Amino acid sequence: MAEANDRRRFLKEGAALAGLGLGAASFASGQTFGTGLPEAHPKDLTLYGEPSRFVNTVRGRDPNSHGPFVHGPNALTPLQDSIGIITPAPLHFVSSHGNVPPDIDPREHRLMIHGMVNRPLVFTLEELKRLPFVSRIYFIECSANKSAASKKTVQETHGKTACSEWTGVRLSLLLKEAGVQQGASWLVAEGAEASQYTRSLPLAKAMEDVLVAYGQNGEPVRPHQGYPLRLLVPGWKAANDVKWLRRIKVVTEPYLHQQEITDYVDVRPDTGGNLRAARSRWINFEQGPKSVITSPSGGQQLPSRGFYMITGLAWSGGGAIRRVEVSTDGGRTWKDAQLEDPVLRIAHTRFSFPWKWSGEEAVLQSRCTDDLGQVQPTLAEFARFWGAASEQVLSGSASGVGHVTFIQPWKVTREGGVHNALA
Amino acid sequence: MAEANDRRRFLKEGAALAGLGLGAASFASGQTFGTGLPEAHPKDLTLYGEPSRFVNTVRGRDPNSHGPFVHGPNALTPLQDSIGIITPAPLHFVSSHGNVPPDIDPREHRLMIHGMVNRPLVFTLEELKRLPFVSRIYFIECSANKSAASKKTVQETHGKTACSEWTGVRLSLLLKEAGVQQGASWLVAEGAEASQYTRSLPLAKAMEDVLVAYGQNGEPVRPHQGYPLRLLVPGWKAANDVKWLRRIKVVTEPYLHQQEITDYVDVRPDTGGNLRAARSRWINFEQGPKSVITSPSGGQQLPSRGFYMITGLAWSGGGAIRRVEVSTDGGRTWKDAQLEDPVLRIAHTRFSFPWKWSGEEAVLQSRCTDDLGQVQPTLAEFARFWGAASEQVLSGSASGVGHVTFIQPWKVTREGGVHNALA
Repeated sequence: MAEANDRRRFLKEGAALAGLGLGAASFASGQTFGTGLPEAHPKDLTLYGEPSRFVNTVRGRDPNSHGPFVHGPNALTPLQDSIGIITPAPLHFVSSHGNVPPDIDPREHRLMIHGMVNRPLVFTLEELKRLPFVSRIYFIECSANKSAASKKTVQETHGKTACSEWTGVRLSLLLKEAGVQQGASWLVAEGAEASQYTRSLPLAKAMEDVLVAYGQNGEPVRPHQGYPLRLLVPGWKAANDVKWLRRIKVVTEPYLHQQEITDYVDVRPDTGGNLRAARSRWINFEQGPKSVITSPSGGQQLPSRGFYMITGLAWSGGGAIRRVEVSTDGGRTWKDAQLEDPVLRIAHTRFSFPWKWSGEEAVLQSRCTDDLGQVQPTLAEFARFWGAASEQVLSGSASGVGHVTFIQPWKVTREGGVHNALA
Repeated sequence: MAEANDRRRFLKEGAALAGLGLGAASFASGQTFGTGLPEAHPKDLTLYGEPSRFVNTVRGRDPNSHGPFVHGPNALTPLQDSIGIITPAPLHFVSSHGNVPPDIDPREHRLMIHGMVNRPLVFTLEELKRLPFVSRIYFIECSANKSAASKKTVQETHGKTACSEWTGVRLSLLLKEAGVQQGASWLVAEGAEASQYTRSLPLAKAMEDVLVAYGQNGEPVRPHQGYPLRLLVPGWKAANDVKWLRRIKVVTEPYLHQQEITDYVDVRPDTGGNLRAARSRWINFEQGPKSVITSPSGGQQLPSRGFYMITGLAWSGGGAIRRVEVSTDGGRTWKDAQLEDPVLRIAHTRFSFPWKWSGEEAVLQSRCTDDLGQVQPTLAEFARFWGAASEQVLSGSASGVGHVTFIQPWKVTREGGVHNALA
């Protein structure tokens, strides 16, 4: 195997870790740096805690799970109960493209970097964990995160986003070590699940800020999120964040793998929504800006008139959130919400807005602006851009429409019920 | 009941939330703002995820758990496996002062604020969650977090610290609403467990940054951490962070409750360590500055010579960490470590330091400086300050010595074993 030969060369020559000037790097495999690995997780609550039995916040089944491929488990973040900006790992949404999470033994797992590189490399998990690392709080949003008239709760309309502290090795470090050859401009990343999920990624993004993540919120990445390794492409649609990552091939052009051209595709407006016109705007990777009020939100019940903190989340793949405005009168007037610390790039940002409910009908909505100056669009603006009618967007019948970012209105009735005002 | 009467008055008059100018606040109880409360937590992994079965990171039993009171569960954060700065809630250390966590139904729980206030108040959890909130990433460290010669791993030497995103209401907001009377200068906070844990706290600190926390890392506070409410006193010893918080009384002086004068007491050096001299320096609340290398650390095994990232955590109750230095030669030379983003006030800060292990014996240690200019002491400096011999400090026989913050050395043997160099 060429890879095995080259890996031996790497070990023998102790190639300098590019840019670090650290001298020879020597890796051994088959040994565990940390502690041993038992076969089952203990249930002693002193050893590993659980929530109170009175807390029933769980992920939700996706009512609109569909697509051209066989789905595995899909589950939605319970945003209506979200607190702060960190999404607990057990509540992070799950979007599947194949099977249930593969049962990967970390001692057996390998990451291969090959293709147009001078030194193909194979890493064990322990080897990766010995390298320089970074931790960053980033959101991940699936581009299937689409509000619609048929959806009732914020978990259903917006539950395919989540925010974690991700820890891992910069992909640029691994690529520099492998030595990318002239002419290479794309990567193809592949997962270890049975369906071998595959995504193409521009090399420039990989060199900028992409992580090979092994940590999530201070623990190893959870199985549903890609244990033991997940690609983390900050600010871009979650479909790029290849789970159970096992292979990165450096190439000259995108692979246009079947999954890449049949799903998560944004069709150019001038094609009239014809997916087969093959001019799909699939290179539109970046998410947001987007915001949503998480409380009060659809399905909740206000117990009485009086004071409430309207609160929600805003995020943008383009950078940090600069401003969130809230309207409580159906969009006639807007006032600045407060951004709660910390306000981080490419992370969920918590906003809050004090509100006194008079007992009259009200429509609550939020809109955000990111530090690129991009403003979250209204439904009408969004539909106009994609050459569709608002009704088509809401019903989901407008094919090829880009990632849904339009403003979400919640209607409060005189009885205190909160409903999706798009319905 | 005076409190009930006053609470009714509060509801009726709709007293303005002080400083917010929000107009009338109207609270109803007995109704649920969110969703319903089932009696058991589901085990469906799609609804609530779990770590991989290959991940065995758990809290550790405290080998040195002792004290003058009956202990409940005690458990140590597994710092040797820590990643990033967030401690997962199930792995947050537990220091108990009484029983197992009380099984509190949040619908029944109340927080009373009374004593020297104009308007005694009683809040339900739902009422508190309707108020303005803040989220902050803060460490909590128990002052029993003491390295010693007898301890082997970083979990044992330093496992009584953890860092979470805490969300809650500022105590100052509640106190302003209650109207603190002239002459008041202290609080007494009480928990709802059977032993009614009680702590005194200066009013000035309460008005500065103390939180009544209901959220931890995006979820309700876990039962072992005080579900549904925990006092969070940033940067001060964890003993102040009253769990299962149910009562805050505004008073004129500290209560010197039995638990306050028999444990977590720092005796002034000039008393010769005599606890009964009653001049204990117990007003020394603030923690740190302190740092420790979490990897490589005691009990780990380096698989081979070559490149390693030395990494660890630093924190200070005095503010942000400004600098961490690492020595790999037993303290002869020190070099700056890299501080990893985010570097936050009163939070764990992750540092890293690239190191090539030659195969020779080495002693690794870290020392930190906070933005007040405070520098972490050596063992000798620490012992000298407290008027004790280093050996007394290490054996735990020096009574009344302040919170242990001295530098922790780890020795790497030629075989790659890592051991507590204090032993």
